[in-house]
Amino acid sequence: MMLSSGKLANLLRLADAAGRFKMLAVDQRDSMRAALAKAAGRQPQDVAYEDMAATKALITDLLSPHSTATLVDPIYGLPRAVKIVPGDVGLLVAVEDGEYDQVGPTGRERKTRLLDGWSVAQAKRSGVNAIKLLLYDTPEASAEVRAHQRQIVRRVGEECVRHDLPFLLEVVTYPIEDASADTPEFARKRPRHAIDAAREFSDATFHVDLLKLQFPADLKYARQFHQAVFDGKERPAVYSLEEIRAFCRELNEAARRPWVLLSGGVGIQEFLVDLELAVEAGASGFLCGRAIWQEVLPLHPNRERMRAYLVSTAVYNYVRANAAAERARPWYAHPHIGGWENLRLHDGDAEWYRRYGASPQRGE
Amino acid sequence: MMLSSGKLANLLRLADAAGRFKMLAVDQRDSMRAALAKAAGRQPQDVAYEDMAATKALITDLLSPHSTATLVDPIYGLPRAVKIVPGDVGLLVAVEDGEYDQVGPTGRERKTRLLDGWSVAQAKRSGVNAIKLLLYDTPEASAEVRAHQRQIVRRVGEECVRHDLPFLLEVVTYPIEDASADTPEFARKRPRHAIDAAREFSDATFHVDLLKLQFPADLKYARQFHQAVFDGKERPAVYSLEEIRAFCRELNEAARRPWVLLSGGVGIQEFLVDLELAVEAGASGFLCGRAIWQEVLPLHPNRERMRAYLVSTAVYNYVRANAAAERARPWYAHPHIGGWENLRLHDGDAEWYRRYGASPQRGE
Repeated sequence: MMLSSGKLANLLRLADAAGRFKMLAVDQRDSMRAALAKAAGRQPQDVAYEDMAATKALITDLLSPHSTATLVDPIYGLPRAVKIVPGDVGLLVAVEDGEYDQVGPTGRERKTRLLDGWSVAQAKRSGVNAIKLLLYDTPEASAEVRAHQRQIVRRVGEECVRHDLPFLLEVVTYPIEDASADTPEFARKRPRHAIDAAREFSDATFHVDLLKLQFPADLKYARQFHQAVFDGKERPAVYSLEEIRAFCRELNEAARRPWVLLSGGVGIQEFLVDLELAVEAGASGFLCGRAIWQEVLPLHPNRERMRAYLVSTAVYNYVRANAAAERARPWYAHPHIGGWENLRLHDGDAEWYRRYGASPQRGE
Repeated sequence: MMLSSGKLANLLRLADAAGRFKMLAVDQRDSMRAALAKAAGRQPQDVAYEDMAATKALITDLLSPHSTATLVDPIYGLPRAVKIVPGDVGLLVAVEDGEYDQVGPTGRERKTRLLDGWSVAQAKRSGVNAIKLLLYDTPEASAEVRAHQRQIVRRVGEECVRHDLPFLLEVVTYPIEDASADTPEFARKRPRHAIDAAREFSDATFHVDLLKLQFPADLKYARQFHQAVFDGKERPAVYSLEEIRAFCRELNEAARRPWVLLSGGVGIQEFLVDLELAVEAGASGFLCGRAIWQEVLPLHPNRERMRAYLVSTAVYNYVRANAAAERARPWYAHPHIGGWENLRLHDGDAEWYRRYGASPQRGE
């Protein structure tokens, strides 16, 4: 596998020395705003910039030293994270808007928007090591919505090639018929949605370097966990752990790029089981936010209690996730890369520097 | 002190967690070519690309893990270093040509050339964390040569602002009357040349973030060391250690930017004394090549002996230099920066990302 200089140099900065990703996500916007509003007894629109920025800075300050890289949003997160994140920890930044357009007959189809006033070029200039795009995608959306979503991925992918920056694509499915994703019907759909998305977005035309994927099932609907194991709520069982293991293997085969697991707001106990199964199947680690630190938000605005929670429970959560990722497949051991020995720089000869960047659209 | 995002994020990657630079230089071109030719009993022009690239790769592989950042040349070094240098070690790349134009009445005045086919834009795209420019400068050169040299610094400085990448300027003086810098006359001139250059290139119009400076004296001409202490050759004494300490203090005051010491091909014993004195005066560490690893070159092409030397003596040299730098002033503690607490991101507010990069010529 040949990689270009900027892709390779920056991918190495995201992982640990063994090629495993143990990444922290602090790029949440609406979910954090809602939680801070609730904690302070206010409306979301009354949460100040400073509340968001300071909360993110506190989480980043206390948790990023445990991460191999930290993902921030460009509005509230990046301007402080640049100073806070240790020099040996990578930085990723989101390019999508925190909100999406809701369209279609049910009003629940999601069209991703890129953040106005922000770009891959600006992100590259700012010194981050990778671009992250969150894409909502379901096969049940209209052809027009699906085409729009694919167009955005392609556009960001091409910009990342132009600026020679790694592109991490996060794909998240969602229900269209029902407002809630917490139903047996949707739990049954998750494996197929996750696996098909991993397959499709591995296509070279999207220029994705790293996939950030959902766990391909909802463990709360698994026969072994459905009886109120994780959140005190009982649900019907729709699949067995053995079937889920098979979904994980299928997801791993579908993903023709190194991939990491996202937490999607599940609790830490459930995430650790998800992670163990994902790693067993071939994931190269995780990029996780809320499962590790979400319980800090109800403590807002009590900074002392927030700090105490982060340095104790949240750090403990992080250390456990890191331990699970210790067995993950190094990203360069993924079949798409072909192993460390096969990793080479595109154009590494006596004249390479002359050609490098001369025609970036060719991906050099 | 306010820094822009790209400058700050990348400066942090060059130093250790305490803000000290312990950097490795492997960007030598002509001096390495000459040494490899001599070792192999050939002419310099018969040294192959592969000999240069493989030698640099070997040094980088075995020594860069001991460095906080590694400086490479774009031709032979970068294409392999990108894979070899650990993900938590920074990368710097040179922009000057390995050769310079020789002009003036004596034919010894030096005009720096930028490497044709290479640019700050390409370097930024390639994923490095800083730009290095080697500038030969002496007050004895003609006004035309001096103006040309300043123009190059300004040009690279402006490009680094545009791409928001740290700019490390290395200033090296040289004799014009004599072919050799190893004379009592030139030893006497060194302090003034080094101090005046540090003062001048600290000017904001050059956009330098970090100075790489010569030791402001030649220790081999110091009263305490002139009797063949370092290289078996006796020389006249032209100054005392006490005077040299005063030169170091003066250099430190003249440098209104954080600065690191270069080794300039002196032996390791002399470099360690230089470094101790520089650190005592206020240097923020070193960027050192030959003093640490130069004895590997005569062992070419015997890879086994080269490797054995690097993992033993060269690593020991590195560890000693690192120990001396342990007392260096953190770069952000330099008066120009004003301390960690005073370090802020330019434009860190709710709308910063919209403005960032919108008018890079303004230095945002």
